[in-house]
Amino acid sequence: MRVRLTISYDGTNYHGWQIQPNGITIQSEINRALSEVFGGELSYISGSESKAVTIGASRTDAGVHARGNVAVFDTTSRMPAEKVAYALNQHLPPDIVVKASTEVSPDFNPRFEAKKKTYSYKILSSKFPDPLIARYSLFHHYELDTENMAKAGAYLTGEHDFTSFSSIHSQTNSFVRTIYDLGIRRENELVIMEVSGNGFLYNMVRIIAGTLIQVGDGIRKPDEIKRILEGKDRELAGPTAPAHGLCLERIEYDPKGLNK
Amino acid sequence: MRVRLTISYDGTNYHGWQIQPNGITIQSEINRALSEVFGGELSYISGSESKAVTIGASRTDAGVHARGNVAVFDTTSRMPAEKVAYALNQHLPPDIVVKASTEVSPDFNPRFEAKKKTYSYKILSSKFPDPLIARYSLFHHYELDTENMAKAGAYLTGEHDFTSFSSIHSQTNSFVRTIYDLGIRRENELVIMEVSGNGFLYNMVRIIAGTLIQVGDGIRKPDEIKRILEGKDRELAGPTAPAHGLCLERIEYDPKGLNK
Repeated sequence: MRVRLTISYDGTNYHGWQIQPNGITIQSEINRALSEVFGGELSYISGSESKAVTIGASRTDAGVHARGNVAVFDTTSRMPAEKVAYALNQHLPPDIVVKASTEVSPDFNPRFEAKKKTYSYKILSSKFPDPLIARYSLFHHYELDTENMAKAGAYLTGEHDFTSFSSIHSQTNSFVRTIYDLGIRRENELVIMEVSGNGFLYNMVRIIAGTLIQVGDGIRKPDEIKRILEGKDRELAGPTAPAHGLCLERIEYDPKGLNK
Repeated sequence: MRVRLTISYDGTNYHGWQIQPNGITIQSEINRALSEVFGGELSYISGSESKAVTIGASRTDAGVHARGNVAVFDTTSRMPAEKVAYALNQHLPPDIVVKASTEVSPDFNPRFEAKKKTYSYKILSSKFPDPLIARYSLFHHYELDTENMAKAGAYLTGEHDFTSFSSIHSQTNSFVRTIYDLGIRRENELVIMEVSGNGFLYNMVRIIAGTLIQVGDGIRKPDEIKRILEGKDRELAGPTAPAHGLCLERIEYDPKGLNK
């Protein structure tokens, strides 16, 4: 059977999601836990880039957090799929938790079938840093004009060519993506950007955050976003905001695709 | 002049507030930063137990967090007191932040003059742990009856002899303290106990939390608290809840005492 895992993690101490030759990653920890629980009842999975027992939906970068990343693995075990989460958590460190496990169709691919991904980017706009949220938010010493940030964000919603908001290292055939929603809200001194779309280019959410922070600082006007999009040039947008403010909140699928 | 510091910290990596022969503490980090900033313009402070340049208001235990602990130091420097926070933060690790610095009367003692201290204890009552708040909350696999926890808490408010809720290692002349308020609230899956009083005995808030969790689990009835208080015996109360759920939220002073 193919089992779908919903995984939450504090990315601070990891070299991102994807298996790497050097350094511990979320995927390498999940794979280790899987082999400790299932041993020979695992198989290398077709569709995984590196020879691996898992396919992940989102290859989050080093330091990025997740509340709901998704991965699948195949096993011949008869363990009920719902029990897998509990079994894996016994073998995972406290900063990685499998929050759900369910059986899915054997051809379910969590990456290609994702219908909607939602990320948050958190900024502490405050006189002093806050050590109790420093791992999960960017400290920003200045006041942010959140109204203007929201106006700027509105130019990004809809279907666009996001070349300007993509790392030059992006490997992709098309830079066209659709942003369904981009909201800016305040929770006390935290400014939270939440953005959902049908998919995101490499570093796209962090470049959007870096650009909207410049708008919040008054360095750019909201309507500059239009020009940045049209220019299709990474140099036009703002800097890539640091990884630790970013969190992959959730990935949504067509309910039909999820059931076996 | 005497300067009052308001200090916030993630206690995870420290051996508590107070200077120790082995291990880094919050106070040792503050003292190091002070000597890096002020050098010879510091003096050993009268009223500090160990020979130290600071007196702290609350000697939080290893692993306990703080949003607003308070300490004072004396200096002959002419740096404006409000600038001290910024200067110290340049010399402190990211998990310790001085959030305010103000000049106070030369005889102001942050420990003896505290009028009200407020602590929170956070419990994640959920099927699975949450790695994004695991450092700051106790994971509890079971549902908690927060109504009964609040009822139990009500028996603790007011002036009582808290011998039963004090570690046997308490060194004190009197076990009588006054709890002004003890509230239980939910924020999504978090159950938060917030308690304020004129002072707390060693481990008192953690023993209260450990006992109220038993009430929430249905192991004890709310009105047992009355009997526990009357018995004046540590054995009657519940276990000491782990340090990492506890946070010293704030310490309040008589406004008169604060001004020079």
